Amino acid sequence: MKTILMTGFDPFGGEAVNPALETVKALDGRVLGDTRICVLEVPTVRGKCVNRVVQAIGELDPFAVICVGQAGGRAEITPERVAINVDDFRIKDNEGNQPVDEPIDPNGPSAYFSTLPIKAMVEAMRSKGIPASVSNTAGTFVCNHLFYGLMRYLDVEGKGRIGGFVHIPYLPEQAVRFPGQPSMSLDCTVEGLFAALQAVLDNRTDLRVSGGREC
Amino acid sequence: MKTILMTGFDPFGGEAVNPALETVKALDGRVLGDTRICVLEVPTVRGKCVNRVVQAIGELDPFAVICVGQAGGRAEITPERVAINVDDFRIKDNEGNQPVDEPIDPNGPSAYFSTLPIKAMVEAMRSKGIPASVSNTAGTFVCNHLFYGLMRYLDVEGKGRIGGFVHIPYLPEQAVRFPGQPSMSLDCTVEGLFAALQAVLDNRTDLRVSGGREC
Amino acid sequence: MKTILMTGFDPFGGEAVNPALETVKALDGRVLGDTRICVLEVPTVRGKCVNRVVQAIGELDPFAVICVGQAGGRAEITPERVAINVDDFRIKDNEGNQPVDEPIDPNGPSAYFSTLPIKAMVEAMRSKGIPASVSNTAGTFVCNHLFYGLMRYLDVEGKGRIGGFVHIPYLPEQAVRFPGQPSMSLDCTVEGLFAALQAVLDNRTDLRVSGGREC
Amino acid sequence: MKTILMTGFDPFGGEAVNPALETVKALDGRVLGDTRICVLEVPTVRGKCVNRVVQAIGELDPFAVICVGQAGGRAEITPERVAINVDDFRIKDNEGNQPVDEPIDPNGPSAYFSTLPIKAMVEAMRSKGIPASVSNTAGTFVCNHLFYGLMRYLDVEGKGRIGGFVHIPYLPEQAVRFPGQPSMSLDCTVEGLFAALQAVLDNRTDLRVSGGREC
Repeated sequence: MKTILMTGFDPFGGEAVNPALETVKALDGRVLGDTRICVLEVPTVRGKCVNRVVQAIGELDPFAVICVGQAGGRAEITPERVAINVDDFRIKDNEGNQPVDEPIDPNGPSAYFSTLPIKAMVEAMRSKGIPASVSNTAGTFVCNHLFYGLMRYLDVEGKGRIGGFVHIPYLPEQAVRFPGQPSMSLDCTVEGLFAALQAVLDNRTDLRVSGGREC
Repeated sequence: MKTILMTGFDPFGGEAVNPALETVKALDGRVLGDTRICVLEVPTVRGKCVNRVVQAIGELDPFAVICVGQAGGRAEITPERVAINVDDFRIKDNEGNQPVDEPIDPNGPSAYFSTLPIKAMVEAMRSKGIPASVSNTAGTFVCNHLFYGLMRYLDVEGKGRIGGFVHIPYLPEQAVRFPGQPSMSLDCTVEGLFAALQAVLDNRTDLRVSGGREC
Repeated sequence: MKTILMTGFDPFGGEAVNPALETVKALDGRVLGDTRICVLEVPTVRGKCVNRVVQAIGELDPFAVICVGQAGGRAEITPERVAINVDDFRIKDNEGNQPVDEPIDPNGPSAYFSTLPIKAMVEAMRSKGIPASVSNTAGTFVCNHLFYGLMRYLDVEGKGRIGGFVHIPYLPEQAVRFPGQPSMSLDCTVEGLFAALQAVLDNRTDLRVSGGREC
Repeated sequence: MKTILMTGFDPFGGEAVNPALETVKALDGRVLGDTRICVLEVPTVRGKCVNRVVQAIGELDPFAVICVGQAGGRAEITPERVAINVDDFRIKDNEGNQPVDEPIDPNGPSAYFSTLPIKAMVEAMRSKGIPASVSNTAGTFVCNHLFYGLMRYLDVEGKGRIGGFVHIPYLPEQAVRFPGQPSMSLDCTVEGLFAALQAVLDNRTDLRVSGGREC
């Protein structure tokens, strides 16, 4: 049986929960055909989050790794297109780090593109009635940091594993604190990510459909 | 046993579903203490929607009437504060009517305030983790029309019934068509409205908490 | 020569300027045909702001009164359709008042509609290239309070004067403090309100064009 | 005397004007100390826009190149942090091209970071009262294409020139067509970009202040 590794961050920024962690926990152990989902909680801390994922890859030997993070303010599930080689933290991470314009890996390339079929993932979620879009920025905080660190490891480690990052909205219970902000219920994020995983299994190459934006 | 009447509109504006109708259907027959929820589908047509509700009030003798409508673009469940005496339709209703700046009732007052405890309803929903806020405009389309028509009838008919209107967001399956727009799942709208109904039963007078806005 | 009275509030909510006051000051003394613009600064204080305007009406005998206020978060100049008879202050006014759900005038009607040709004002601004829309809510703070108080006075005083309220966006210098919030430069708000005034003079009855919204 | 080259696109997407072109035209020939601004109009066409800029660099020998583009929906002037090596056009460019997920340069790196002092540019604009923020995505259309193409050329050509891209909002006259969308007047965009240019001249290294986002 094959393994797909999903990760979710612990809560940050004063939140009591992280929708990413809640969502991947709900998917832990689920099976799609010959593939089982394994789930890992990672700390919202630069460096450490990458180390934790790299260690789990060594232990679990997944063929694909999908990291998931919270995107406060977004209304949709957004597979990320690209990770950039910079840390520029507007707020502190969970161990108080707040780097400004530091490279994540001084020896790494400027960016990595997701090797997941992000267009197919978006289509699969929409076909299930779950709002989804491609995102062209994963920000410059720990989410982008982990995304970049993961892709850097997969690039160097060289065994053909694929990987990427998906942002999901606040849970409704979080949005209560931010009147007017969009949210998505756990049932939706779980169903959406499950559909996206199925798309990963079904699409070795991505769909040729536009997911771009003018800005 | 007492009756509370809830109404939901049929789909309009090219939509295949109306979240209001789906939500109230899911609440039909539910019981809160000594009160049973009765549900009515109303057409998204000026005039007719009011007549249908008035007829149902006559048949069911509810002590409270809560009309529910779709608010595309909003991220929260929003009890409405006020209905205004004007029809100004940006789009046609389901029978092709498109009045511009016509009074709903030339003999009626300029506006009616909801007689539901809207602040208590918002608090009850938030305490359940459902995003909610007071809204100060129900628009100028059929939702406001029904809200005004209901309050006009309750004012004239004079038997102490209370009533009001609640707007709810798109369902996720609708928002798929409008990338970036917020939505709320049916489970949330149902749980939210149920909590709001409980607040109606529990609060004869409204809470003294601010639900206002600068604009 | 006829007089049109315009008012603008002093700054509130921690702001150093109020775009409404800056804009009307820039229009003070301007002449349109046989009409001169007179300008009044009013305090952002419930009650007092209305008294100040009523006093100025007595002194200046204007045929029209247009009150202007700041609408943080809006991107357009928005003539208001309706004032509602309630004070529900989310923040304190400039003398510390923070009423919750109190009627502005216990003997007044639930609402007043603007007696300005708001559709013609919007069209006139758009034809000059200034973003503008009808708004269906003036909020529940001092702006709505003054709008209601003005219309109440004009209704009771009974000499055929017309009046209403227009909200305008933050100035760019204010929006610097709120990343992502829209703004409009003083040149635009001045040109827009001047075009709107011309529309008031040119349109005794309003245009029959839709300015409504679904919600 | 030194030269700084600024470029603006011709209108696209059905627009009659492009705020970028109008803004740079207004800056043409302006002098800051020992530096003169030279301006170039570029076509909103993949490939051609880069060729035009490369040709102008050869003719004008600028020490810095700043390309400017329209960002419909944004409320601020946004210096871009990073260009990514992909064309994914949601709409056609001005010659009908609509590539999906094609690399801009198959031999180029995945991304280039701006070599302009983007934090200093933002600070300079804000200090003049002009809303500005760092952006972490230039989209995947012709703006990103030109940004990438410029940085690729500067990287290869190797003479120490610096370069980058700045997005600016709709002009008010454009936003009239999109009710609710933010805009910025030409006076503001001109003053803002002029302040940003001064920051380019004054800051050989960028400020160490956060301009990041969580997502």
